[in-house]
Amino acid sequence: MRKNTARRYFMISLGAKTFAPVTPVWVVGTYDHEGRPNVMTAAWAGICCSKPPSIYVSLRKATSTYGNLMERKAFTISFPSEAYVKEVDCFGLVSGRECEKLSTTKLTPIKSDVVDAPYVEEFPVVLECKVIKVVEIGLHTEFIGEILDVKAQQTVLDENKMPDVEKVKPLVCSLSDMTYRKVGENIGKSFSIGKVILKQKGAKNAP
Amino acid sequence: MRKNTARRYFMISLGAKTFAPVTPVWVVGTYDHEGRPNVMTAAWAGICCSKPPSIYVSLRKATSTYGNLMERKAFTISFPSEAYVKEVDCFGLVSGRECEKLSTTKLTPIKSDVVDAPYVEEFPVVLECKVIKVVEIGLHTEFIGEILDVKAQQTVLDENKMPDVEKVKPLVCSLSDMTYRKVGENIGKSFSIGKVILKQKGAKNAP
Repeated sequence: MRKNTARRYFMISLGAKTFAPVTPVWVVGTYDHEGRPNVMTAAWAGICCSKPPSIYVSLRKATSTYGNLMERKAFTISFPSEAYVKEVDCFGLVSGRECEKLSTTKLTPIKSDVVDAPYVEEFPVVLECKVIKVVEIGLHTEFIGEILDVKAQQTVLDENKMPDVEKVKPLVCSLSDMTYRKVGENIGKSFSIGKVILKQKGAKNAP
Repeated sequence: MRKNTARRYFMISLGAKTFAPVTPVWVVGTYDHEGRPNVMTAAWAGICCSKPPSIYVSLRKATSTYGNLMERKAFTISFPSEAYVKEVDCFGLVSGRECEKLSTTKLTPIKSDVVDAPYVEEFPVVLECKVIKVVEIGLHTEFIGEILDVKAQQTVLDENKMPDVEKVKPLVCSLSDMTYRKVGENIGKSFSIGKVILKQKGAKNAP
C-alpha cells in the first residue's frame, strides 16, 4: 500500500512506554472503610462504552483509592475548572493516608445520592459510577464503572442543557512537559470540517 | 463529612450518559483481511497500565476496525497535529468499507516494523500496539494493547528526546459543542503548583 517514494519524516524510536501528548484531568472520589472521603487526580481514565454508559479508571494497588474501590465498588469522576488547578495538583501530591486532601484544600465533599461515593461540590461536572467490572492488566488494575448519573452546576449549562466547555473551563495535562493547560481555540466542528475533503473534485474513492 | 452549610451550587441531573468535557483525538490504524490499511478517529481510548505499558480503545462491533482488530490483533494509535484537523474529521465521517480514507485524504500509510498494523506517516507521534486483552462491556468492546514502541518525528522532539507539545500541536475534542480545539495556555507545572497549598500556614492535616 505504501507509495514508492522516500520517506519525508525521520521517525525516532522512543521505546516501549506509556505516552500521550495530552490527557484530560480526572478527579476520582471514593469513601474509605470509615466513610472518610478521598480524592485523587488520575491521568489514566476515559469513557469505554456507551451502553451501558461506562468509564474506566486505572489504578495501582498501592493507592488509597484502589482499596476504597475494592471495598465500596463505587466512585465519582469530577471535572475541575481551571480556577482549581492548585487544588487538583495537591490531590496528586499526597496520599489520602497521610493527608485529608479535601479539608487541606478547603474543598467540600458531597455524598452522592446515587452511589456510595463523594464528589467535590466546587467542581462543575461530576459522573456518579458503580463498578461493574475489574480488569487486572499488570501494575495497574482497571475499574470499569457504569455511569448512573451525570450532574452539572446549573450555571455551566448551555441552551441544550449540556455543560458548556467555555463555562466548565476543563483542564488538560500535557505529559511531555508535565504542565496543566487550558483548552484552547476552536479550530473546527466535528463531523463537519472534513466534509470539504470528501466533496473535493478528484478525491479518489470518495463515497 | 459534609459541612452543615447551605449548598452553594445547584446541581442539575443530566441522566445516565457518557460525558467528558474534553478528550484527546486518537487515530487507530489497522489492516483488513486483505492487507488494506484503515484508519478511524476514536474518542474512547486511553492509557490503562504502565507495566506492561498499555492503551485501550473501545469500539462498536459495527466498525471496520473492530473486525480488523479481532483478526490481526494489532493496531497503532497516531496523534495528529492541528494542521490535519480536516483529514482527522474525514476519518470519522466515513467507514473504511465505503471509502479508502488514506488515499482520499492524500495521507500515507506506513507499515509498522513492530506490529501488523499501519500508521500515518504525516502524524508526529505513534504508538505501536499488540492486543493483549479483549473486554466485552456492552455495545462497546474494549481492546487493550501493549505498547511495544513509541515513535516520533525527529523534528518534534525536545532536548530530553520526548515529543514537545508545542511542536506536536495535538488536537483535543470538546464534546459539549463537538469542536476540535487546540491545547491552550500553560497554567502551571504538575506535581509542583499545588505545593503552595501544603505549605500554607494553617492548612489543616497537611503532612
